[in-house]
Amino acid sequence: MTYPFLDNLRVIESSAFIAAPLAGLTLSQYGAEVIRVDMIGGGIDYGRMPRMPQADGRGRSLYWTALNKGKRSIAIDLRRPQGRELVQALATAPGPRGGVLLTNIGTPWLAHEVLAAKRADVITCTIEGNSDGSTALDYTVNCATGYPAVTGGGSVQHPVNHVLPAWDMACAYQAAFAIVAAVSRRATCGEGAQLRIALSDVAFTALSHLGVMGEAELLHQDRPSIGNDLYGAFGRDFGTSDGGRIMVAAISINQWDALVQACGIADAIAALEQRLGLEFRDEAQRFEARAEIAALVEPWFTARTRAQAEAELTRHKVCWGRYNTVTELLAADARASVANPVFERIDTPGIGTHLAAGAVVRAAGLPRQPTSPAPLLGTDTDQVLHEVLGLDSGVIGRLHDAGIVAGPERDPSRV
Amino acid sequence: MTYPFLDNLRVIESSAFIAAPLAGLTLSQYGAEVIRVDMIGGGIDYGRMPRMPQADGRGRSLYWTALNKGKRSIAIDLRRPQGRELVQALATAPGPRGGVLLTNIGTPWLAHEVLAAKRADVITCTIEGNSDGSTALDYTVNCATGYPAVTGGGSVQHPVNHVLPAWDMACAYQAAFAIVAAVSRRATCGEGAQLRIALSDVAFTALSHLGVMGEAELLHQDRPSIGNDLYGAFGRDFGTSDGGRIMVAAISINQWDALVQACGIADAIAALEQRLGLEFRDEAQRFEARAEIAALVEPWFTARTRAQAEAELTRHKVCWGRYNTVTELLAADARASVANPVFERIDTPGIGTHLAAGAVVRAAGLPRQPTSPAPLLGTDTDQVLHEVLGLDSGVIGRLHDAGIVAGPERDPSRV
Repeated sequence: MTYPFLDNLRVIESSAFIAAPLAGLTLSQYGAEVIRVDMIGGGIDYGRMPRMPQADGRGRSLYWTALNKGKRSIAIDLRRPQGRELVQALATAPGPRGGVLLTNIGTPWLAHEVLAAKRADVITCTIEGNSDGSTALDYTVNCATGYPAVTGGGSVQHPVNHVLPAWDMACAYQAAFAIVAAVSRRATCGEGAQLRIALSDVAFTALSHLGVMGEAELLHQDRPSIGNDLYGAFGRDFGTSDGGRIMVAAISINQWDALVQACGIADAIAALEQRLGLEFRDEAQRFEARAEIAALVEPWFTARTRAQAEAELTRHKVCWGRYNTVTELLAADARASVANPVFERIDTPGIGTHLAAGAVVRAAGLPRQPTSPAPLLGTDTDQVLHEVLGLDSGVIGRLHDAGIVAGPERDPSRV
Repeated sequence: MTYPFLDNLRVIESSAFIAAPLAGLTLSQYGAEVIRVDMIGGGIDYGRMPRMPQADGRGRSLYWTALNKGKRSIAIDLRRPQGRELVQALATAPGPRGGVLLTNIGTPWLAHEVLAAKRADVITCTIEGNSDGSTALDYTVNCATGYPAVTGGGSVQHPVNHVLPAWDMACAYQAAFAIVAAVSRRATCGEGAQLRIALSDVAFTALSHLGVMGEAELLHQDRPSIGNDLYGAFGRDFGTSDGGRIMVAAISINQWDALVQACGIADAIAALEQRLGLEFRDEAQRFEARAEIAALVEPWFTARTRAQAEAELTRHKVCWGRYNTVTELLAADARASVANPVFERIDTPGIGTHLAAGAVVRAAGLPRQPTSPAPLLGTDTDQVLHEVLGLDSGVIGRLHDAGIVAGPERDPSRV
């Protein structure tokens, strides 16, 4: 579902992979009109795995269609000057709704100064790998953050990469925020903005904000590599008698009391405190004794099935979560289903009907619109040229004839 | 550094831990005035590890001060009706700048309808664990996403938790975005908004946007557990002769060509393609043959020191990154230093001078202000009461006498 927060905003997106497309998706879910510009035939991310199975190997990408739902699509030959001029014109079309470009491609012909010469108050948001313009991806930034060296009991020599592209995701949401902040300022003072966000800066600023950078500089220590243990309080995963796995967290005092009550270990905990000379109402002291505490908690889990443990944990208001695969999540967790208003079922051309997320926010009382599925490439070519640039059908026809633009590709599942 | 994008915005933050404080920090870095309200003596996150070393154990938290830089602090007795009324008054003070509350506390006396009764166009943004209001933390949401089951070669029975609180971070940036979107809409139509964002929805919507949900539903498969290998193309980590560890990624065709050239394995790759009947210009076929490709790449790394490998990778424009600890990052990577304009040195009371990140965006030509350090609790109590609520010194004095508010705590490092 989308909300009409930004229905006075049009964003031209020239992008690939995750960070910029997810930023555009986020803007679209808040009501912005997002027009993704692609090379005729698709950009370098258009066929990225996983793809729908199809004998010719050309099934649609579940990756691309997931990241580009809610958008309009225009297909242009970006190698030719006339095609590039069309994109420049789209990004600088007059009117308060327009004049916003979102990109992570970094082509000179979409540079801020080029567009600002055509529309002085243009807002451009360029996502880069590093701030010097050099290439970096989530994978090659993440390794530098120190996190893989302390994940899963790892080390620098035996690092564990994250699988979630966390920095791309954070970069996307920061970019959406930056664009709306700049648009808001433009509405007040009339000035455009040249925004640049480097993926590496997204990661390294987070190290500062989360305190791990200060820890290294001021305490001369790195976060310890402690496997699945929660840092600074008590929490970790436990196995149940039937092979289930459950995470529990006891950061607040209420969460700690709930865990102790649920497991019925109040006396044993009191004895442990006495033996160690610690006071577990202090979260740092729980962390210090985490191995001994876990030894008291573990038998409670191994004596129960997952269902039994979950029921008792819930009854005692313990903060817990179940480990599962995505398949298991979809099969058993109502939070990832249409029972949750954040989700809906949409019908994507070439893919079929499937669960899809709309805006993450829930805004009481505001009208909502269904999320539109990812378009076939070029689905909106003619309408966009007409609506945004005011081109008439004769001009649009000649652009087609010259191969400068292309209309909707055929649904690959029906070719 | 902060930018004046949002200097017409004041946000009252009643929060704890990461998601809401990081959202407030993000807003402050774009120029908003963010006033964090805390219980006199500090909330439940005020002493979270790591802390500055101090004989009495009361050294300031590097976690709290990292997340609350750039804000003003007011200390109020939140258990008493008069204290709660002050917070309500702050959040609903008249004027276009105000009327915005950011919270992840969820107390009934800060509910949207309570504040809307005092100011009809108030905007509240409430971050929750689950959308039914039940508790969840990053740790207990992450386990449900399926990621720990495929990280580091793990499984549901042997999951690997992430250490980065990725969902808290994503939630923070989404909340900052949602607030600015709602403020922008209010400026146009005059309506407030009740915004709710659940941490679990932040995670599960990302599963949809990144295609892994569609993969499970439509292809009946979960993302495979493939350790440090990059999914869908070629990339992984390699060790150098001197114990260094380097991540390389070859997603685009340019990145792939660069890696093959740097390692001097063009002939061996061609022979491998022939033997396997594959075409590595197709990223999916690189992924299929990733083990065989890695076997050709690995000897190149083991024959070189880290410095040698990095120099040659850079020369060939390979997309690569170095694994390190945060200490090593600070010692050797200019991207995490004041050579990068995103960083600056600030002097935090009770902590000293240290590196800190400002806004992640770089906005050419806009004036910038230094990031102010995290305040001592209650540093701004009197000024906020005067500036926002118009209270005079007599009234403020009586609030102090009654213990309803408190002024700046003493610098704990000087007590």
